[in-house]
Amino acid sequence: MTAEGGLTGRTTTGPVGTDGRGVGDEERWARAAWSALAEPGDEVAGALLAQLGAAEAWRWVVANAGGRTALPQSASPRAAARLSRAVARWGPRARRLGVEGWSPGGPPPTRAAARVVVPGDPDWPSGLDALGAGAPSCLWVRGELGAAAVVALVGARAATAYGEGVAVDLAVGLARAGRVVVSGGAYGIDAAAHRGALAAGGRTVVVVAGGVDRAYPAGNARLVEEAVASGGAVVGEVPPGSLPTRSRFLQRNRLIAALGSATVVVEAAWRSGALSTAHHALRIGRPVGAVPGPVTSMASAGCHRLLRDGAAVCVTDAAEVLELAGAIGTDAAPEREGPARALDGVDPLARRVHDALGTRAPRPAETVARAAGVSSADAIAALGLLELAGLARNEGGGWTASPV
Amino acid sequence: MTAEGGLTGRTTTGPVGTDGRGVGDEERWARAAWSALAEPGDEVAGALLAQLGAAEAWRWVVANAGGRTALPQSASPRAAARLSRAVARWGPRARRLGVEGWSPGGPPPTRAAARVVVPGDPDWPSGLDALGAGAPSCLWVRGELGAAAVVALVGARAATAYGEGVAVDLAVGLARAGRVVVSGGAYGIDAAAHRGALAAGGRTVVVVAGGVDRAYPAGNARLVEEAVASGGAVVGEVPPGSLPTRSRFLQRNRLIAALGSATVVVEAAWRSGALSTAHHALRIGRPVGAVPGPVTSMASAGCHRLLRDGAAVCVTDAAEVLELAGAIGTDAAPEREGPARALDGVDPLARRVHDALGTRAPRPAETVARAAGVSSADAIAALGLLELAGLARNEGGGWTASPV
Repeated sequence: MTAEGGLTGRTTTGPVGTDGRGVGDEERWARAAWSALAEPGDEVAGALLAQLGAAEAWRWVVANAGGRTALPQSASPRAAARLSRAVARWGPRARRLGVEGWSPGGPPPTRAAARVVVPGDPDWPSGLDALGAGAPSCLWVRGELGAAAVVALVGARAATAYGEGVAVDLAVGLARAGRVVVSGGAYGIDAAAHRGALAAGGRTVVVVAGGVDRAYPAGNARLVEEAVASGGAVVGEVPPGSLPTRSRFLQRNRLIAALGSATVVVEAAWRSGALSTAHHALRIGRPVGAVPGPVTSMASAGCHRLLRDGAAVCVTDAAEVLELAGAIGTDAAPEREGPARALDGVDPLARRVHDALGTRAPRPAETVARAAGVSSADAIAALGLLELAGLARNEGGGWTASPV
Repeated sequence: MTAEGGLTGRTTTGPVGTDGRGVGDEERWARAAWSALAEPGDEVAGALLAQLGAAEAWRWVVANAGGRTALPQSASPRAAARLSRAVARWGPRARRLGVEGWSPGGPPPTRAAARVVVPGDPDWPSGLDALGAGAPSCLWVRGELGAAAVVALVGARAATAYGEGVAVDLAVGLARAGRVVVSGGAYGIDAAAHRGALAAGGRTVVVVAGGVDRAYPAGNARLVEEAVASGGAVVGEVPPGSLPTRSRFLQRNRLIAALGSATVVVEAAWRSGALSTAHHALRIGRPVGAVPGPVTSMASAGCHRLLRDGAAVCVTDAAEVLELAGAIGTDAAPEREGPARALDGVDPLARRVHDALGTRAPRPAETVARAAGVSSADAIAALGLLELAGLARNEGGGWTASPV
């Protein structure tokens, strides 16, 4: 499997930057071009784009990729060294792509089916900015990103029926609460999360490691199409046609974490890519939830590891996920209540007195006090309260417990 | 059900304080007598015993229980008020017991089958001292307490097969590690914990809410006898013959928590007595563990609640319980390892280079560099490392990935 960007030898047709809401066409073009040149998560590329702007950075790299590195004037020796290494890294691919023939405003490096979304666009997910220099230069999008709050549900491909069931339930609950469910489109938990959101009539976003024209795995192609058709999207940071390599899978996880206001791991083995998503979320300060499962299930071992390490909050239903993802106070999960019991709200002393009552033979207050180990005065006061609460009866010269 | 102490109308025979290792017979006798007079957890009684000594406190309460309260000279007005209320509380039972007829050195308030263990005895569990004034005045013991480290395993009576299985597994692991398993002798998780310890040839301690001569529930009587016969014990803080009342069950939980160097809740419903044991442990600064389970199981809801609240550490096997209970460092659970993978220990850049190799057609280093998005120099260095690790081969003028 090779890891080349998807622009090589392709006819590059279709619109890029034609809507240009606040972002110049040249800048948009250059960000798309950068997504073909630098691997996902390349922080030197990110820093260069931030410093020079994408178009200027592109002109710079085209001029320097041949080997003559003319550093930006402001560069420190340390930055210069990093930049030299980066140019050495970008050079082989730049030559292969033939970037000398590319120029801002020239043929856009995309295909008709995908849009390029860049920082400054109304639908650029602001959550990605937390990635700093590691943020993608652009997103390649099929479908709609929208502006609704997003929750990431991730987990193992080798999921159990239990895990998939919980993923569906959580996604249904999140979709009903108006949240977009983001996941990675893999088999197992990812697919269950997407399916649950769709089943509830909600929207879901599939983040892929390769090009958005390549549904990975192929068996989930239909699910991905359904996500797009239902108002959601499929999103990648490498150009259409690019292959999903191992390192791109790992980098993809940081996108999922950064898109979600919280990340929930439903099932994950002791070593699992889903844990990398959780750690990306933690690194950018986003809350992480983990769904517990049987300790006898290896598919839950990674979730238990997160709980044990204190890295994740234990979540057991959609309300708890919403609490995790939302502002505290507005989305607090309703406090669960067990069934009400007859002695709820009765103080400990009165409970002790109640314990000392029989249900048949009436007992004098003094006997009750002795049995309960309380003073006669306390017993008499407690019996009065219990009588008011319908929990004790005074008859035949003594006290009995009322049947409850 | 009445809550009277078990001394009334009984012949009180058998030895109390005959071994007197460092604790005077009179003091031992008086602590046993106090256990009949004051309800478990009575902090005024505890404070009085600490201040005056048990024998002197006994003489004082016998002299004052009739109603005339001569306060100790040192008492503050606030303490005096508490003491007056306590005497009013103790009075009815003192009159019923006829304590005027009791005196230190007189007939011991016990029966042959149980020993009285008091603070200062070699087998007094030092963990109980953390309860302060709420510590029991004595323990009534059948069997042996020993000096081994103790772990509390508790949980729901209405346990599932999953929960009972986990309780057995944990108890077996703890017993094999030389730990004593303490629990409450109830059906469900408690019984499974006791059974597991016994099955592994270990020792277990049953803490009962009533007298140690009353196995509660009756169906577990044989289990309790087996615990005693196998070098363990059944322990209570009220005299033999006493009934297990509701408030005594709740107070009993504090003993379980204080006896264990850690408390682990295996299964517990959203409201469960096992949670009260966990909260007692937290109150005295002991670590609490909770075993996760399926979120679809109501029997695990209380465990998940403890995890969610951050009150408990997630524990999934005996090694993790030992780590929780033991000194950090000496008992740290072995870091679990997934199966070793071929690329373990390979740095991310070399992994990317490895990803870019095919298994059949050899590729020139320059092609690999381009595909991986790394510099030629980095690719060549990485290929050299991969070759050394047996992960890549150089043949026919190019590089391939070795089958792993």
